[in-house]
Amino acid sequence: MLSKSRVRFVRSLQQEKARSQLRLFVIEGEKMVRDYLEAGRSMEQLYVLDEWWVSLPEHVRAKAGDVVLVSPAELAKLSGLATPQSAVAVARQPDDEWDPAELAAGLSFGLEAVRDPGNLGSLLRVAAWFGVPQVLCSPDCVELYNPKVVQATMGALLLVDVHRAPLTPALRVVSSRGVPIYGTVLDGTSIYDVDLGERGVILLGNESRGLSDEVRSSVSHAVTIPSWTAPAPGKDSLNVAVAAAVICSEFRRRGRAPAAPGRG
Amino acid sequence: MLSKSRVRFVRSLQQEKARSQLRLFVIEGEKMVRDYLEAGRSMEQLYVLDEWWVSLPEHVRAKAGDVVLVSPAELAKLSGLATPQSAVAVARQPDDEWDPAELAAGLSFGLEAVRDPGNLGSLLRVAAWFGVPQVLCSPDCVELYNPKVVQATMGALLLVDVHRAPLTPALRVVSSRGVPIYGTVLDGTSIYDVDLGERGVILLGNESRGLSDEVRSSVSHAVTIPSWTAPAPGKDSLNVAVAAAVICSEFRRRGRAPAAPGRG
Repeated sequence: MLSKSRVRFVRSLQQEKARSQLRLFVIEGEKMVRDYLEAGRSMEQLYVLDEWWVSLPEHVRAKAGDVVLVSPAELAKLSGLATPQSAVAVARQPDDEWDPAELAAGLSFGLEAVRDPGNLGSLLRVAAWFGVPQVLCSPDCVELYNPKVVQATMGALLLVDVHRAPLTPALRVVSSRGVPIYGTVLDGTSIYDVDLGERGVILLGNESRGLSDEVRSSVSHAVTIPSWTAPAPGKDSLNVAVAAAVICSEFRRRGRAPAAPGRG
Repeated sequence: MLSKSRVRFVRSLQQEKARSQLRLFVIEGEKMVRDYLEAGRSMEQLYVLDEWWVSLPEHVRAKAGDVVLVSPAELAKLSGLATPQSAVAVARQPDDEWDPAELAAGLSFGLEAVRDPGNLGSLLRVAAWFGVPQVLCSPDCVELYNPKVVQATMGALLLVDVHRAPLTPALRVVSSRGVPIYGTVLDGTSIYDVDLGERGVILLGNESRGLSDEVRSSVSHAVTIPSWTAPAPGKDSLNVAVAAAVICSEFRRRGRAPAAPGRG
């Protein structure tokens, strides 16, 4: 039997204020909760449907601490989803201590004012796929532990370190190490024609305004994904996560071992 | 003064049944309504806030037929959005007559069971950006005129012809003309190593199941976007619109004029 105060506590984490005060957040759904368990991440609280829980392999279940078996009706009370999915967990937010020099170690994203939760989640999936281990979000990006962001990451938070801090001072540290800063803009050099190496920060701006002048002033290479069609009514820019993926793909294509002769 | 029957009529188009019976759909928002007007598309009904309407250039306003000026409260009654944006229009769905051979004329998308409205909208934006003029949706894709799809296209419906029909017979027509059919799968040849020309259908499957066996049997080239990271908990596939963009980018990169020496 789930107490009212437990329900109130978990539900309170739907609000940013409670999340940031308690440094906790909610993870929902079968795939994501299982991923967190398999990755060996400890959880503060874990509420599951019995039927799903017993279907998990023993080695996955063994990694959980206290588990509370709940009924579907109880799970629905805890869940922020329209269709709750077998498991709701409360996890601790990682410490936000961090050295901006980490951005210079490989490929990184610098995100300015990305406001849509789905876009931030998609960006982290792109980062996880293409091996972008560090993401820096400006303070006016949507909050990382917003349940819609967490849901849209599909678990990528396990694979990508995300920090939230003003971009300009961090970019200064990156520049001082001679690492390029690529700004994604509409009037830059074609991404296909720019020198791309193994290190660099890829800056991506707000969904409608793009990068601010302040952030643009840190850019060493302004890059653009060329369009194949002329401007016309109905033409819009690419979605920010889509643009990030095209750019990452181009970095990785160049960095990989050359294809066998006659295949490419 | 807006009559109750007008409100009921426009609101009824939030439902698929009414849309498909009447062959009408709703367009909302300043950018999209303006794009439709600029493209010279006629609208059955157009409801606007006076303040916004008079801010439009005369040549754009001249393209509208009957315009009904409404108050913000009236617009809110017509709108399906949480935050209505100055204009609601009712437009006619284009005829669905179509020759599958059109898919063979350039690059096309074939979408199987894409269920998420945001994904279908993003796919059409990708198509508009990279010059993919034809999109074929399987009958179990989300309906094209679902207001969430229309909203997510950001107007790309003006630039891309979208049809809804079973994929296999259409793909047979494409194959018979010697045009390649690329299937996006997790175990194909790296997209960077496959021969890509100016023509081809790019098949993209359902968000969780990918392409069905039936559709896979039509594929001439099974392609994959290589990941830069090893499988791990939290790793997921790329979003379907993100994958489409990476593949289109690779087609277009190869098809463009070579970069000036020393730049790439």
